[in-house]
Amino acid sequence: MSKTVTIHAPGTVANLVCGFDVLGLALHQPYDIMSIKLKDEPTVTIINKDEFNLPTDPEKNVAGVVLLSMMEKLNNETGFELTIEKHIKPGSGIGSSAASAAGAAVAANELLDKQFSKEELVQFAMNGEKLASGVKHADNIAPCIYGGVTLIRSIHPLDIVQVPAPELYVTVVHPQIEVRTSDARQILKKQILLKDAIKQWGNVAGLVAGFIKSDYDLIGRSLEDVIIEPVRSILIPGFDEVKSKSKAAGALGGGISGSGPSIFMLSKDEASAKAVEIVMQEIYNKIGIDYNTYVTKINGEGVRVVDSK
Amino acid sequence: MSKTVTIHAPGTVANLVCGFDVLGLALHQPYDIMSIKLKDEPTVTIINKDEFNLPTDPEKNVAGVVLLSMMEKLNNETGFELTIEKHIKPGSGIGSSAASAAGAAVAANELLDKQFSKEELVQFAMNGEKLASGVKHADNIAPCIYGGVTLIRSIHPLDIVQVPAPELYVTVVHPQIEVRTSDARQILKKQILLKDAIKQWGNVAGLVAGFIKSDYDLIGRSLEDVIIEPVRSILIPGFDEVKSKSKAAGALGGGISGSGPSIFMLSKDEASAKAVEIVMQEIYNKIGIDYNTYVTKINGEGVRVVDSK
Repeated sequence: MSKTVTIHAPGTVANLVCGFDVLGLALHQPYDIMSIKLKDEPTVTIINKDEFNLPTDPEKNVAGVVLLSMMEKLNNETGFELTIEKHIKPGSGIGSSAASAAGAAVAANELLDKQFSKEELVQFAMNGEKLASGVKHADNIAPCIYGGVTLIRSIHPLDIVQVPAPELYVTVVHPQIEVRTSDARQILKKQILLKDAIKQWGNVAGLVAGFIKSDYDLIGRSLEDVIIEPVRSILIPGFDEVKSKSKAAGALGGGISGSGPSIFMLSKDEASAKAVEIVMQEIYNKIGIDYNTYVTKINGEGVRVVDSK
Repeated sequence: MSKTVTIHAPGTVANLVCGFDVLGLALHQPYDIMSIKLKDEPTVTIINKDEFNLPTDPEKNVAGVVLLSMMEKLNNETGFELTIEKHIKPGSGIGSSAASAAGAAVAANELLDKQFSKEELVQFAMNGEKLASGVKHADNIAPCIYGGVTLIRSIHPLDIVQVPAPELYVTVVHPQIEVRTSDARQILKKQILLKDAIKQWGNVAGLVAGFIKSDYDLIGRSLEDVIIEPVRSILIPGFDEVKSKSKAAGALGGGISGSGPSIFMLSKDEASAKAVEIVMQEIYNKIGIDYNTYVTKINGEGVRVVDSK
């Protein structure tokens, strides 16, 4: 009988305000559930067990292209049957495509006796991001596979740095509006002021130092984005109010999750994180936009194998 | 009898390749020697004991304006007599003006029973940088006063972060050509590409993580500057050769010190640092430019009070 591996692939927050395209962290909630088994013939079968109607043609499915790239590496000697139960809504800005891609890569690797390194899994999973957004980026994939906070120091060649971080609570609100990653990228200016870039890399350096030194105040002061947020936040109704009132409610700081529309806030303790959730709910109730909220923590493990039999 | 305080004010390397305007570190060698005593009348007297012919008018002297700003804060109730023996050549790019400014501030504070905090001393000393370069920057002042590696996360408001770093050897070559800080700033473009800025803040984050995690390889990989170095290095004959041959000789990496013309290289051990020095000497002997070299280490202490009686 063929072995079945089941994994949980968590949502992730990319950019972390000042770290556009380089920083990301993994969440405990929400997560996708995927089960995979080997097939004798070298094809990929995708079975969706959710309401999102994602493509089942493996070449058009984020997880599918990842598995196809792994199969190719293995000289097409095997195939996969993947069952996907997504809970991270596509287009939410908390790494839905990355969870599909990273989850598929880790699950398949578990079947393949872990022959690939985490870095190789990131490389495979980036094919899924390419399909989803047109760009082979790793700022959601890396934290999804490594867990915790990760830095993509360089994308060519790929250089992933694990950034130790203290216990942090994360409150996320997903206002149910559509912001396409490609649109969110389109509106960014190709040129920026050097003086703004200097502020940004001061903050990125401060944020990384704050994480590693467990300096919560420094983390809070560094969560400032003078380049991307002023442009992208216009696409998210209620953004400024969520940010200012969340900080007033005790959050260290936060901003747009990935390319939005989700907004995340970091807090030192659970009470603050829950107070922030109430603030977020009040704002979107008032505006009249449907939303989901999560109060969760940084997930140090990333994709987790929950069953293998 | 009036008390005399004597201090050593070390040279500093600002920018650290990828950390333009935000990162800096203090050296053990070279350093300036300064002695200060209080005067009854509220004036500043500058006595130069070196060959550099710097102004003795306190309003035109980097250390002088720092002492004047401290006097003003103290309602002009006291004055200072400062004797300066500079060993850090002005215009070398290793923080000569910062050593004068920071040394004067720390020395005066010692006379004043340390009533000012380190951060306040940085604020006073920045008046010296303003006189020297027209800009109130702190990327040399901060490591000179705090020691070690420092990050200026923000200049307004001033936010100085101490960045723990492992033992590192620093080789410095000062080719005796003139590069004016104002010229070196002039040739920079005011606008940069977002994609270059992303590379830069990936490297800044990597460098800070490398320092705090004592990850020498990561430090080496992160010492990359795609924005400033390509423009400024043109002003420094031999730069590319020094860089490539120093790395071949064992350096982790390095680049322009401050706005140049000095070049610095970081090494994990003394043998590499000395091999790098030989490489530098050979290159400038061949080119036929006079130079000084130093093989030293990161100075964790900053300005040091050596005598107080």
